[in-house]
Amino acid sequence: MTVLVLTCEEDLTADIVVATLHELGVPLVRLDPADLPGRVSLSAEYADNDFHGYLKSGERMVSLNSLRSVWVRRPGVPGARSAEQSAWITAEAEQALYGMLSCTHARWMNHPTAAAQARYKPWQLHIAHRSGFLVPPTLLTSFPSAARQFAATHRDLVVKSVSGKHPGDPPMVLPTTRISPDTDFSGVAAGPTLLQRHVPKEADIRLTCIEDQLFAARKKADPEEVDSRFTHHGTWEAAEVPDAVHRAVLAYMNAAQLAYGAFDFAEDPEGAWWFLECNQGGQFGFVQLETDQPIAQAIAGWLAVKSAP
Amino acid sequence: MTVLVLTCEEDLTADIVVATLHELGVPLVRLDPADLPGRVSLSAEYADNDFHGYLKSGERMVSLNSLRSVWVRRPGVPGARSAEQSAWITAEAEQALYGMLSCTHARWMNHPTAAAQARYKPWQLHIAHRSGFLVPPTLLTSFPSAARQFAATHRDLVVKSVSGKHPGDPPMVLPTTRISPDTDFSGVAAGPTLLQRHVPKEADIRLTCIEDQLFAARKKADPEEVDSRFTHHGTWEAAEVPDAVHRAVLAYMNAAQLAYGAFDFAEDPEGAWWFLECNQGGQFGFVQLETDQPIAQAIAGWLAVKSAP
Repeated sequence: MTVLVLTCEEDLTADIVVATLHELGVPLVRLDPADLPGRVSLSAEYADNDFHGYLKSGERMVSLNSLRSVWVRRPGVPGARSAEQSAWITAEAEQALYGMLSCTHARWMNHPTAAAQARYKPWQLHIAHRSGFLVPPTLLTSFPSAARQFAATHRDLVVKSVSGKHPGDPPMVLPTTRISPDTDFSGVAAGPTLLQRHVPKEADIRLTCIEDQLFAARKKADPEEVDSRFTHHGTWEAAEVPDAVHRAVLAYMNAAQLAYGAFDFAEDPEGAWWFLECNQGGQFGFVQLETDQPIAQAIAGWLAVKSAP
Repeated sequence: MTVLVLTCEEDLTADIVVATLHELGVPLVRLDPADLPGRVSLSAEYADNDFHGYLKSGERMVSLNSLRSVWVRRPGVPGARSAEQSAWITAEAEQALYGMLSCTHARWMNHPTAAAQARYKPWQLHIAHRSGFLVPPTLLTSFPSAARQFAATHRDLVVKSVSGKHPGDPPMVLPTTRISPDTDFSGVAAGPTLLQRHVPKEADIRLTCIEDQLFAARKKADPEEVDSRFTHHGTWEAAEVPDAVHRAVLAYMNAAQLAYGAFDFAEDPEGAWWFLECNQGGQFGFVQLETDQPIAQAIAGWLAVKSAP
């Protein structure tokens, strides 16, 4: 029973997980979908009501029926390194690879359909509410009048991207930005805009969850900075997870059908944790580096469990 | 309780469903996501553990909590008609619209995550097998040697696209093509290729399923043509669905979590129906036109059912 790791070549975080799997003696194949076709090949036959397939990466060959788990880490775009690049080759390679993998009994971290659903930020807020998290009042709108009314009610505001990274080349990360309630909101009509009541922040919390294992880390906030992803002061320290948050995290993971999730919270002066987002593919290397929490080991352990036949 | 129809402006098939819903007295909003932002606006607020949202198209406004169903018919790309077009506007509008809609209690035909999964042809073959259909032996491979061996075993072959339409501008539909077993298969290494044993065809069958309502139509095959989508001879006539196929269709719809599916079969000289594919967004207008089967009415009826609160 083999673990399949889908990621690009330069992925130091994956290296730690792979090293742990080696220590556990678990066979694994690591490949980048960008190398299909090319360095990566595949084949699957459907006959006599049975399905037989295999993947080959370099000299390593693995039967699809012997996959115990698939880790979708930082995979490249299928076909991206093929000799003849085209949207057509990418579509064919993507369909073949992920279509075949979805026929297996392997456990996924995370399954592509769960991952796609979990990326929707409006849905995240909805599930977060239902799971029992504190969620700052949030408006998503293309009506300038709704934005003005929300600003007048809540006064202390931040604006965020709805979809995450700007799809430029290179992609731009758009920081969460504090804005005045007297801003001219007429531009909202040109594109749906996400406004949120600003949470006065004592600390940033990053909580990494692997199924039912929670690792929380805390970094004291710089009162001048809204978005800690862009600051370099302070260090992450391991933190205790409040019981109510623990329950809410498990409810969220279950509702979203995720095996891995990276939750961001803002801790307010009263010590309450406010849900900001859950990134189903969020980084954890920086937390493990500073806190020594065994996150990579927990991922390796999850991947190493044999799937049901 | 309102029905939301997501489709482009020029969609005669949708017009029939919309007319039926009007006859049933069911309120509906029809819009094209390409018009967001612009003609279409939206807003959603998350506060006090509750979610309130609405959509506006032209002068028509609908509360998201009052949606009974969403029909994803032929929606345009979000942002495609915005004043400032960009990949960024498309990503933001897509996230906002589909993210908000996925927070509602509405029933979907089909839910986007089910639709995405159901598009994978390798997965279709797998689910078809498990559901009890006859499926022609099929190989999906980027190994020339595997292609040669399959060809030597089955001799009478067709080659198909894995991903469906070629993503050119305009998109090209690639017909299923008969090929000689002595073909030079070395090109298979340049991109995963789908080979299937050719089914000698007495007739083409198109079976349209709306939850548990099945409408089958039969068209006598031209023995010279492999892919009937590109022939214009003959007409579609209503057909009885064999019991075993009926059971397999319901099993497939359930496994794939689809409310709508358009199945293609090849009827062999013994009268057996061989599964070719299930298109979750397949056309039905041409069948209804020739057979008078009330498919649009069945869709309207499904959309008109009130969703659970």
